[in-house]
Amino acid sequence: MIVVMQDAAGEKHIQHVIERMVELGFNVHRTTGETQTILAGVGSPDHFEIAEFKMLSGVHDAYRISSPYKLAGRNFRPEGTRIRFQNGVVIGGEQVILMAGPCSVESREQILTSAKQVKAAGAQFLRGGAFKPRSSPYSFQGMGLDGLKLLQEVGQQTGLLVITEVMEISQIELMLPYIDCFQVGARNMQNFNLLRELGHVRKPVLLKRGIAATIEEVLLSAEYILSGGNYELMLCERGVRTFETYTRNTMDISAIPVLKKLTHLPVFGDPSHGVGIREFVPAMAMASVAAGADGLLMEMHPNPDKAMSDGAQSLYPAQLTELVNKLRGIAAVVGRSIV
Amino acid sequence: MIVVMQDAAGEKHIQHVIERMVELGFNVHRTTGETQTILAGVGSPDHFEIAEFKMLSGVHDAYRISSPYKLAGRNFRPEGTRIRFQNGVVIGGEQVILMAGPCSVESREQILTSAKQVKAAGAQFLRGGAFKPRSSPYSFQGMGLDGLKLLQEVGQQTGLLVITEVMEISQIELMLPYIDCFQVGARNMQNFNLLRELGHVRKPVLLKRGIAATIEEVLLSAEYILSGGNYELMLCERGVRTFETYTRNTMDISAIPVLKKLTHLPVFGDPSHGVGIREFVPAMAMASVAAGADGLLMEMHPNPDKAMSDGAQSLYPAQLTELVNKLRGIAAVVGRSIV
Amino acid sequence: MIVVMQDAAGEKHIQHVIERMVELGFNVHRTTGETQTILAGVGSPDHFEIAEFKMLSGVHDAYRISSPYKLAGRNFRPEGTRIRFQNGVVIGGEQVILMAGPCSVESREQILTSAKQVKAAGAQFLRGGAFKPRSSPYSFQGMGLDGLKLLQEVGQQTGLLVITEVMEISQIELMLPYIDCFQVGARNMQNFNLLRELGHVRKPVLLKRGIAATIEEVLLSAEYILSGGNYELMLCERGVRTFETYTRNTMDISAIPVLKKLTHLPVFGDPSHGVGIREFVPAMAMASVAAGADGLLMEMHPNPDKAMSDGAQSLYPAQLTELVNKLRGIAAVVGRSIV
Amino acid sequence: MIVVMQDAAGEKHIQHVIERMVELGFNVHRTTGETQTILAGVGSPDHFEIAEFKMLSGVHDAYRISSPYKLAGRNFRPEGTRIRFQNGVVIGGEQVILMAGPCSVESREQILTSAKQVKAAGAQFLRGGAFKPRSSPYSFQGMGLDGLKLLQEVGQQTGLLVITEVMEISQIELMLPYIDCFQVGARNMQNFNLLRELGHVRKPVLLKRGIAATIEEVLLSAEYILSGGNYELMLCERGVRTFETYTRNTMDISAIPVLKKLTHLPVFGDPSHGVGIREFVPAMAMASVAAGADGLLMEMHPNPDKAMSDGAQSLYPAQLTELVNKLRGIAAVVGRSIV
Repeated sequence: MIVVMQDAAGEKHIQHVIERMVELGFNVHRTTGETQTILAGVGSPDHFEIAEFKMLSGVHDAYRISSPYKLAGRNFRPEGTRIRFQNGVVIGGEQVILMAGPCSVESREQILTSAKQVKAAGAQFLRGGAFKPRSSPYSFQGMGLDGLKLLQEVGQQTGLLVITEVMEISQIELMLPYIDCFQVGARNMQNFNLLRELGHVRKPVLLKRGIAATIEEVLLSAEYILSGGNYELMLCERGVRTFETYTRNTMDISAIPVLKKLTHLPVFGDPSHGVGIREFVPAMAMASVAAGADGLLMEMHPNPDKAMSDGAQSLYPAQLTELVNKLRGIAAVVGRSIV
Repeated sequence: MIVVMQDAAGEKHIQHVIERMVELGFNVHRTTGETQTILAGVGSPDHFEIAEFKMLSGVHDAYRISSPYKLAGRNFRPEGTRIRFQNGVVIGGEQVILMAGPCSVESREQILTSAKQVKAAGAQFLRGGAFKPRSSPYSFQGMGLDGLKLLQEVGQQTGLLVITEVMEISQIELMLPYIDCFQVGARNMQNFNLLRELGHVRKPVLLKRGIAATIEEVLLSAEYILSGGNYELMLCERGVRTFETYTRNTMDISAIPVLKKLTHLPVFGDPSHGVGIREFVPAMAMASVAAGADGLLMEMHPNPDKAMSDGAQSLYPAQLTELVNKLRGIAAVVGRSIV
Repeated sequence: MIVVMQDAAGEKHIQHVIERMVELGFNVHRTTGETQTILAGVGSPDHFEIAEFKMLSGVHDAYRISSPYKLAGRNFRPEGTRIRFQNGVVIGGEQVILMAGPCSVESREQILTSAKQVKAAGAQFLRGGAFKPRSSPYSFQGMGLDGLKLLQEVGQQTGLLVITEVMEISQIELMLPYIDCFQVGARNMQNFNLLRELGHVRKPVLLKRGIAATIEEVLLSAEYILSGGNYELMLCERGVRTFETYTRNTMDISAIPVLKKLTHLPVFGDPSHGVGIREFVPAMAMASVAAGADGLLMEMHPNPDKAMSDGAQSLYPAQLTELVNKLRGIAAVVGRSIV
Repeated sequence: MIVVMQDAAGEKHIQHVIERMVELGFNVHRTTGETQTILAGVGSPDHFEIAEFKMLSGVHDAYRISSPYKLAGRNFRPEGTRIRFQNGVVIGGEQVILMAGPCSVESREQILTSAKQVKAAGAQFLRGGAFKPRSSPYSFQGMGLDGLKLLQEVGQQTGLLVITEVMEISQIELMLPYIDCFQVGARNMQNFNLLRELGHVRKPVLLKRGIAATIEEVLLSAEYILSGGNYELMLCERGVRTFETYTRNTMDISAIPVLKKLTHLPVFGDPSHGVGIREFVPAMAMASVAAGADGLLMEMHPNPDKAMSDGAQSLYPAQLTELVNKLRGIAAVVGRSIV
């Protein structure tokens, strides 16, 4: 930490700041200039708030110089995290992994058809919501446990791994037997109690960026899961909220290479939520892979016009197939591959 | 709902849209112009997604004309909601209600001192966190149940009502015996499972706006609680996230009069989180009351420089007292009062 | 400036950074910790880019510790700037100054009626656009020189000072004889050539914050005018662009007290553009004064429903009168007055 | 235009709205439902403000259904605009066009070296600023006319076309003899007087999106230039301002395919300003081409560490060469090519 004192700061204020830094566990190096004193705090105490120092009397400004996350940082595992599944699929390796499927599980027929189409297009994972977080209490809220069972059945039948969203601590136990990967949605990225519990589970988690979360906050939320002991974690950019209303969100493609630099965790892109409009999903999927994504999460529905949720952003089956073919070309350019 | 067809839309596409509208429960009025057909859907089906219609073939654009919330709308209770507490305090009436206290309960001495200072300054409620949502897993996470007990004890001793934040469904039962009002924080504004459970409780709730939540989304989240049967609900503006970094958040003061128009629920302002810097809190508190707030939620700490969380935005006790005196003047100008 | 080197930074990289700092005119103080080296640059060279240092090899991060503006800073004139007009009106003093009038000058009758109503309500300035910046080339673009002449005529007749927007260097000379104060609109806040020219004029300027301008950028734009020698400058908060679409902009009321702290320049609020909806303008006007504004800029039109621009946010004459009465009460609470 | 009346709207209010619509040139179709009246205005008057109707008594809401721009719309030239230069370069065709060079022209040697490197890497255009818009009046403001002369000289020597930024009407005449294409920067996207003048010029213009400009506003600004008669226009996404501070801006890659749909004008990406950090520029350049960009504008400097501006986001020469090789691969996947 660095504290820059005001030009006129008196010795009393300087000493007070030094004492507080020492109290927190910092070693303090002092630089006394002609007009300004600078205090450099060396060490990394578990807990301090930089805002506290900005407010102390006589302080001009204060800066945190170590990242507030430790386990999520690239340094912790410079070679990058690889997540291996029983059927041999590896996330974070040379292959770009595709997860696709409908927003919600609606019926056996719908999810089975989806799974076959998704598999044929080249995906390794089937996505589908059983419990849905909906802005309105009057919207379809998902099939619940029945949806989970259908996901498992259909996943086994088609040889696809299964990922679904968990919204609540009580759903964790319920979901464990049926799925291969938990998904934490944007709205729950700072549901810290949920994150903490997921840290105690031994099953991979995909954590989505919140719509107004900074990259640092994403990594702090990741830290909640990692610090519980669950290292099978991947992150996902899915669009942030800006002033632009033409698209549902503004997909921050740059978050993909930035996260790849800052953390060892695999990074996915979700172009469906990223733009929210079917016809722009392929362009954003290609952009994500071109920018270095380790995988994609995409919505596809056998009949998007009749989907019970998110139909507007779900690809038609044929679109997905055509897109994956192009993605193979993009992946090759950036030294990756798609099965 | 209104659907505007493209200039070139064929009869087949028009009929398809009409069928889908009828299927959802709308009566459809058709206006066929020289170049453009407009379909007006009358009625209010429980569940439809406007985005679905925007994507249908031949559609130029589609607009929702009824609000997606019902119970939260001003029409539902035009005279406004009043929440009455056992000690006679009324929220939503002529009086502007003050809730103040530290960010976290830290010890008996700290919370008792806080309560006395807050009471002396003119507040009706003591605020204080027992379970804290912290961005970092390494930050102080609150005293838990012990904090709740201290809040109750100190509230009874000083004659203050008590409000604290609930983060998790499992905390609801735990908190019920100790507190007078639940607070839902910005990060949980779209934790829909938590909201649904709070709808089944018979205790008032203060729901904070999320940092990137639109006003419509705030009202949809309110609808989750109201539709469960809990009508003792108030809303709170506490700053949204923008590009400006000088302040912690950008407090959207206009949300106060806008919400007062759109809903019957009382509306609070939280200037402490709104700006995040102590010295600007009084100006924003006065602005909130000038703009029509029914109450304020503010952080005050007996010794902010030593606070375990949010010290930088906590008022000194003397500042709070001075501020309340000015607030009385502002309240009078807008036809309100502060005890 | 402070440069924090990476843990592993070699001496070669450290020396390179030091050389670059010295080259720019800094005295460098070096703190060598066990793992990390910190370089504090003392002095204030006219020109350097902090981003350059962040990118140098071996650098972890770099921070600017002096403000990039000098003349605009509060220290330059701690007692605050007062702008005096020939008729005795003073901006930046104890009085809160009111500027009101229609968005555009439309006709002699319209602007004369407006002036009388504005004067009667208590304003000191008549505002009105002669040259209009419109998003669409097909919208009404203003009356031009004829509008300027009408503003002057009507101002003299009613005893009001006149303020109008300047959009282009070539308009400066044209406007000088007719007006009392230039206004620079949000869209031109970073039209640096225009700002530089206004620095050479001897007439007051009101500079509006851009819709996506940080507070620091507002002060840097102010610096362009001040550094040209024109110290009769005031700033104006008029709403920033956020994700919220219910209001036209999100008025950042906190920018008022923040600017009052950072600069000696008077600070105005423009609640009309701040929210863009007539019925919320009074609440935001009151909030602005409660938060410490030195004045208000407001749109009023004798017949808003027929206004050629911005009718939706223009007050009715009677609304303005009623509002000013309340503003007098608010001003009194914060130690100010309105004539 | 569609106006939805309030449930309780009386006939008087309905008639008033109809009269106003007719006055503006609309044909009005009325749908009278059981509770609600809907008025559809057919026709496209040159000038009306939808906000005006939202405020009229009895109105629930109002929607614009035609785009406010005409010449910029895709319908105006469905096959797409191609801009041809004397040396045979075509923008908007099958080839992806590359424009690269330093932020500022600093000296003959610097710009000549840049030009050679840029040419060798595969670019068709040399970019370089002669007049610089700088946030601070104390920053380097460019070489002015001398810079223009150097650009021309070096362009001719290397066979590169030349593009430079115009900030002011008075610079247009000055620049005309020396350059091949004008660039309008983000800060001037709504400098309408400048845009209008550029409409009267017979030289191509590249118009950058403002940092807080919606896609609709970009197209309205384009309309200013097109309506003056200059159809040789291209647009450029260069990052918007959001809450994220890790990158300089948030590059809205989705704006590229969205603009390609809405307008016939060629669309460029500027990854250098888009992220502002050298190491992420290649990923964003590739993402731009993958998403359908017709060209790229990129900063490269022979010695970025010594650049007088924007060094932090300028590529090293070798990086540019390597990047262009990858871009060729990406272009091929999306059916384009790079020479």
